[in-house]
Amino acid sequence: MTHAETLKIESRGRGTYEITAAVEAVVGRSGISRGLCNVFVLHTSASLIVCENADSTVRRDLETFAAKFVRDGDPSFIHDLEGPDDMPAHIRSIFTQSSITVPVQDARCRLGTWQGLFLWEHRTNPHRRQVVVTVMGDS
Amino acid sequence: MTHAETLKIESRGRGTYEITAAVEAVVGRSGISRGLCNVFVLHTSASLIVCENADSTVRRDLETFAAKFVRDGDPSFIHDLEGPDDMPAHIRSIFTQSSITVPVQDARCRLGTWQGLFLWEHRTNPHRRQVVVTVMGDS
Amino acid sequence: MTHAETLKIESRGRGTYEITAAVEAVVGRSGISRGLCNVFVLHTSASLIVCENADSTVRRDLETFAAKFVRDGDPSFIHDLEGPDDMPAHIRSIFTQSSITVPVQDARCRLGTWQGLFLWEHRTNPHRRQVVVTVMGDS
Repeated sequence: MTHAETLKIESRGRGTYEITAAVEAVVGRSGISRGLCNVFVLHTSASLIVCENADSTVRRDLETFAAKFVRDGDPSFIHDLEGPDDMPAHIRSIFTQSSITVPVQDARCRLGTWQGLFLWEHRTNPHRRQVVVTVMGDS
Repeated sequence: MTHAETLKIESRGRGTYEITAAVEAVVGRSGISRGLCNVFVLHTSASLIVCENADSTVRRDLETFAAKFVRDGDPSFIHDLEGPDDMPAHIRSIFTQSSITVPVQDARCRLGTWQGLFLWEHRTNPHRRQVVVTVMGDS
Repeated sequence: MTHAETLKIESRGRGTYEITAAVEAVVGRSGISRGLCNVFVLHTSASLIVCENADSTVRRDLETFAAKFVRDGDPSFIHDLEGPDDMPAHIRSIFTQSSITVPVQDARCRLGTWQGLFLWEHRTNPHRRQVVVTVMGDS
């Protein structure tokens, strides 16, 4: 059994956007109680992460770290057509995830107590992002 | 066909713990001979990696690298409630994996000759960790 | 329904090699129209990434970045049996992906407009690499 839906997320620019509830809603509508749920982002300048969702300072520090991990406007980059955050957005995506697969049990995502699924927008400007959620398993 | 089990791993603090045999045992018990096996860690301060499992110096160098990649007690972090290794543990997890999916063939994980699956504990203190193994496919 | 094939890729040394068409061909031969496609690399010194496939300067800048992310011949590494690029190849693999799962819709990989799947060879010398493609779903 396979069920798929595409989520649309309007980002307000660089930052993390929790999508756990939206993904869980797709699992609920799928009628699947045991199996796997794959989340896939259709872009190369936004990515997916599993992150602590209790204390927002975690995601603030994550941005602080990422800004040093790869610097906007780094002069060693050739690819800057869309601005100083263009190439850093690709690198931040590649070093995190485009695809995350989560177990489904009792018709829900089986996540740890403090785990949330997030879309990580790496571009500084707002973007319309799409995430494909595919649920496979037994009813 | 879906089969799932939760592995419990008692870490002795920061370091890599091979789980290949334990994951393969779940595949064996599943009765599934062809399909996919997903491994998912239920925490945000421990992660999963595929790593060379022949020479342990690889994992020693990996720790050396990770300690420089994100420094314990970095003063730019706000989130340090649980100590200087708190935020670094989250970042090390996000930049590696929470979820890895491996092909199943002939009722075994199809891994390369030198590949092993490891839980990477990022906290300095021992922790009780849980990893969900989900096997889907044909008998 | 499960279908699996192993792709063989002859790398010419460090660099990115697009495998999107080869993966799509496996999906086509599988007879599966809706489900998931898992791509898994059988090595610990080459990895998989989803990357922009329109402008090759993205992948050139990615190499520039990776060369600074972990330096060949870094004297803090013990593991250098196979040369100065040995340990960096393992680290570059661990911080990107060994396994990527992509949605399958209408008998094709559902990728974003600018997304491609790439094998990233991290060793400086040419290598023969194997990638397992597993397609699961409904016909």
